[in-house]
Amino acid sequence: VHEIHTQLRNHRSIRAYEPQPLDDSTVEEIVATGQAAATSSNLQATTVIHVTNPETRQRIAAVTGGQKQVTTAGAFLVWCADLNRSHRVCESVGGEMVSGMTEQFIIATVDVSLAAQNAVVAAEAMGLGICYIGAIRNDPQTVSDLLELPQHVYPVFGLCIGVPAEDPEVKPRLPLAAVLKRDVYTTEEDEQAIADYDRTMQDYYGSRSANQKTTTWSADIARLVGGERRPHMREYLAERGFEMR
Amino acid sequence: VHEIHTQLRNHRSIRAYEPQPLDDSTVEEIVATGQAAATSSNLQATTVIHVTNPETRQRIAAVTGGQKQVTTAGAFLVWCADLNRSHRVCESVGGEMVSGMTEQFIIATVDVSLAAQNAVVAAEAMGLGICYIGAIRNDPQTVSDLLELPQHVYPVFGLCIGVPAEDPEVKPRLPLAAVLKRDVYTTEEDEQAIADYDRTMQDYYGSRSANQKTTTWSADIARLVGGERRPHMREYLAERGFEMR
Repeated sequence: VHEIHTQLRNHRSIRAYEPQPLDDSTVEEIVATGQAAATSSNLQATTVIHVTNPETRQRIAAVTGGQKQVTTAGAFLVWCADLNRSHRVCESVGGEMVSGMTEQFIIATVDVSLAAQNAVVAAEAMGLGICYIGAIRNDPQTVSDLLELPQHVYPVFGLCIGVPAEDPEVKPRLPLAAVLKRDVYTTEEDEQAIADYDRTMQDYYGSRSANQKTTTWSADIARLVGGERRPHMREYLAERGFEMR
Repeated sequence: VHEIHTQLRNHRSIRAYEPQPLDDSTVEEIVATGQAAATSSNLQATTVIHVTNPETRQRIAAVTGGQKQVTTAGAFLVWCADLNRSHRVCESVGGEMVSGMTEQFIIATVDVSLAAQNAVVAAEAMGLGICYIGAIRNDPQTVSDLLELPQHVYPVFGLCIGVPAEDPEVKPRLPLAAVLKRDVYTTEEDEQAIADYDRTMQDYYGSRSANQKTTTWSADIARLVGGERRPHMREYLAERGFEMR
């Protein structure tokens, strides 16, 4: 117990990797362990594209704004929410899938996330480092084209996995009082908890070994949610068969 | 490594629990370990409601169609996608949050799912059993009312945790060939893989210790995606501030 909890608590994103590629059997072990996570009604709406083509990785790195770990990690996986498979399965038994429902979008997105996080725990247990890459959604159409994703499939996030070539600090999280509530949603403890966390993060950002900066969590979040983020997502998803009805 | 992978591979949902409630420190340890999972831009868009009020648990169980583990598990947690906190944080520093973006909805839903799956691994490492409860989305407005969720918060799923009072079989997953692809999305191996899996699941359903039935995965999936699922979700979410722009 102690060992697993310690591993989980010590997660941090790794952005610098040793150059050796992960062998196929390691990738297979990681993804198969991811598959064992819970899945809504056993739908298993997850497909993983293991991107080995260097040019494809370069082009995906460009989509992410040049995040170098997309090309340098031992492996790069794109985790896709996949309702195309259920579509085919439904047709194969003479049925027809109802598509475009918001609920299906939630189910598929959650399915992928649970499987990926299980895979991450498996990878980290092997001493590997990981980094989720949400920025593939900067241009999901280009990623879809590169990976030849069919309708009813969208790339939720990328995942770098490899042998770490850095050992960054663990980033502190919000005090539990802000996140765990009893019976009803209350905000009474939040102001204090967030003020405490702002100080914690100011200290963390000012003293960490790389990429030091002077900011608070509140200022970061205000910047983050104060502008339109990836406003193309709705139209992209609608064109791919996720109409959000 | 071996031990962690074995634990992850042996996950199965537990629906029968010993009656003792989980103590608060155990719930806190599990949720705090969940918090250590990756989160998009450190947004931490997760809030967990630990539901201890027996009447609330009864009413939520009714929403799920009477799933008894909602009332009998040692603890019942509702995992919420929370953009209300970032809204408040943004205002506290004089900013204004842009809300209703589809991208924010994805970020928050993924954040919650990664944190919950980390929490699940932590709980299972303690010998506890778990069961995700997606069926709280049968009536998310009632759940929101019971838990007094504010705007920009939605309950993604429930989670039962407790001491198992059953030891069900592990449910087989799709062959890896159907789920893990190299460089591009292909379907060529899927027909065989799904046919194999249909036989595997037929054997599993016909021989498992409880709730035996005669069906294939394909037939199950066709039923599942062949009808409208939770068609209220879009309107519910729009009313709660997730307009999916």
